[in-house]
Amino acid sequence: MPDTYLIDLVCSSTGAAVPWERLQGLSAAGRPLVCRYDLPRVAASVDRDAIAARPRGMWRWRELLPLPGGHAPVSLGEGDTPLLATPRLARELGVRRLWLKDEAGEPTGSFKARGISAAVTMALHLGARAFAVPSAGNAGGALAAYAARAGVPAHVFVPRDTPEVNQREVLLFGAQLHRIDGLIHDCGRVVAEQREALGAFDLSTLKEPYRLEGKKTMGLELLEQLGWRVPDVVVYPTGGGTGLIGVHAAIAAAAALGWLDEARQPRFVAVQASGCAPIVRAFERGQDEAALFEGAHTCASGLRVPKAVGDRMMLQILRSTGGTAIAIDDDTLMDATRELARSEGINACPEAGACIAAIRRLRASGWLRADDEVVTFNTGAGTKYVEQLPPLS
Amino acid sequence: MPDTYLIDLVCSSTGAAVPWERLQGLSAAGRPLVCRYDLPRVAASVDRDAIAARPRGMWRWRELLPLPGGHAPVSLGEGDTPLLATPRLARELGVRRLWLKDEAGEPTGSFKARGISAAVTMALHLGARAFAVPSAGNAGGALAAYAARAGVPAHVFVPRDTPEVNQREVLLFGAQLHRIDGLIHDCGRVVAEQREALGAFDLSTLKEPYRLEGKKTMGLELLEQLGWRVPDVVVYPTGGGTGLIGVHAAIAAAAALGWLDEARQPRFVAVQASGCAPIVRAFERGQDEAALFEGAHTCASGLRVPKAVGDRMMLQILRSTGGTAIAIDDDTLMDATRELARSEGINACPEAGACIAAIRRLRASGWLRADDEVVTFNTGAGTKYVEQLPPLS
Repeated sequence: MPDTYLIDLVCSSTGAAVPWERLQGLSAAGRPLVCRYDLPRVAASVDRDAIAARPRGMWRWRELLPLPGGHAPVSLGEGDTPLLATPRLARELGVRRLWLKDEAGEPTGSFKARGISAAVTMALHLGARAFAVPSAGNAGGALAAYAARAGVPAHVFVPRDTPEVNQREVLLFGAQLHRIDGLIHDCGRVVAEQREALGAFDLSTLKEPYRLEGKKTMGLELLEQLGWRVPDVVVYPTGGGTGLIGVHAAIAAAAALGWLDEARQPRFVAVQASGCAPIVRAFERGQDEAALFEGAHTCASGLRVPKAVGDRMMLQILRSTGGTAIAIDDDTLMDATRELARSEGINACPEAGACIAAIRRLRASGWLRADDEVVTFNTGAGTKYVEQLPPLS
Repeated sequence: MPDTYLIDLVCSSTGAAVPWERLQGLSAAGRPLVCRYDLPRVAASVDRDAIAARPRGMWRWRELLPLPGGHAPVSLGEGDTPLLATPRLARELGVRRLWLKDEAGEPTGSFKARGISAAVTMALHLGARAFAVPSAGNAGGALAAYAARAGVPAHVFVPRDTPEVNQREVLLFGAQLHRIDGLIHDCGRVVAEQREALGAFDLSTLKEPYRLEGKKTMGLELLEQLGWRVPDVVVYPTGGGTGLIGVHAAIAAAAALGWLDEARQPRFVAVQASGCAPIVRAFERGQDEAALFEGAHTCASGLRVPKAVGDRMMLQILRSTGGTAIAIDDDTLMDATRELARSEGINACPEAGACIAAIRRLRASGWLRADDEVVTFNTGAGTKYVEQLPPLS
């Protein structure tokens, strides 16, 4: 077996370990599996400066990714996105510093590229020959692109009312589009039912272990860009949850490696839409799990996830870091999205607008302090949300 | 005056020099002005490895950009885009190696971000307080975004039939959209007429000296990504021409700095659309200048430039490097764009499709050889060309 620092996969709930060397889905307990690395050996063989000097892209974090050495990832150049200072907006919102990690420039225009690159790479390495995924927005296009790049078939299952650009993009890359009457969790059920007949590996969020590893690189880059300083607060738009969980995992890994000036976690804030806020509701009720959010609706398509398999992991992170969860209504999040464009020149997705609105509200309530350094994320290109552009007069 | 390696600006036609320290448009001869740097002093103060180790983005090439030290550029994180190997496509097209420099991930989704970042930065540094630009496609959105980022007004003049997404994006960023009955050179004329009344500096391609400098960084990155090896052929989609001229300038600068293993230029190929091919026509006729191309039309909006102010510079580069110019019809370039998506997972703009089709044709004619290493460019995100996506059935 070629060189890797990955030891095994452990159940996020029970801690039971399974080998990574074959394709794995959920744990025996039906929970997400997470990667365990030999971090002392990573620390002994590479340092943060050596990684900084490598050619750009998320695969430069090779020792903290699962793919064994000597194998080429399936890549479209994902990673190393800018961290933008937004001093004008910070002043306006009343926080000391505000950073926006802008994922709009990823292949296929969203942060989904990172997770899909990692997951497609590993699944092919372990023998998968076709893929299936449910998608509420950008994940489907990302899978379709990476499958085309790898030369293998892909099946994308979307709610019939998913934004048209997201659906047509799947067709552009030559993947098969399955339009389902229902929401993303319904699509996930159909994938589970049909994957065997299709000969396809199920790449659903957190139902396999490696999308999370790709998202983790977003957090590693963030720390590097901040000079290995941990911010006070991370405000993350939360649908399936791998982004938030991935950033938390990145900070934990960096701390264990001795790369941080001060080993601590920021307070994590999960931002959802008022029309689909299962995590917010569970957080407020003190629950460990989030029940299905009935009648989910929001224009921020990436937040339209009424039931997330990573619910326990998210809630645990929010509580253990002294974080919180907050829901923003569609009008307010769209106003904030437009404000980002006019005030900072950033054509963000509505999910990012929700985060800006959340920061404003949390500052007004006093939960955010004037001296907090806050990081938020634009998870996708506003360009893909054609309907949010102002009309021509 | 703070530190800069820029000496002065010279007329691309007569060589007459003017000072860079105040706002400049065209030269006295009505030709583009180009930057002259003190390259021996650059070579003495920085090497290519030091630049590689800096934080990502085009502004890490600081010594080869005009902005004096100690001043912050107007930036949205532009630059450091991936160079994608496309071995499957290379085999299919019959060339030894094919690389695609993918500019889709730039802020506002196109290579225009580089030039606009440099030009807005310098014009503001030298006293401009508002901007105007003609645009056939992506330049308008880029200017609108960078003006918003800088907090200054912008006026964008577009042909009335410019793709709708490009126009609506201008409005999103709060810039003023002026819709003109005509083509981009008509818009350019209106800008020249109205700029004084608007109090706006004219940022038209090559009518000021710094958009070119931003584009140059694309070529510097390319060389770095190739390990400072010059490819055999560069195939570039040619509208206004700053991209092609910028890559050529980058290679010349790197050669002068002693950064290249072998100091030479690749053969440059200008690719245009059959419906708007002024440079191809002038090249074939052996002319030094390109006449206005009447009745210009093509779905590749970035190529709809019937009269380019940089025509002489482009033609000179094509001839001096043993290059050529080729026109591709809309059906063929759209087929190639779709092929890029299906075969490599790259959602490219139609201008990139034109380049792939050009490579196929030049290989068939024997102009490209089986052992050529070829580099081409995806100048913008296919996502912005909504109309090219397959329809939902």
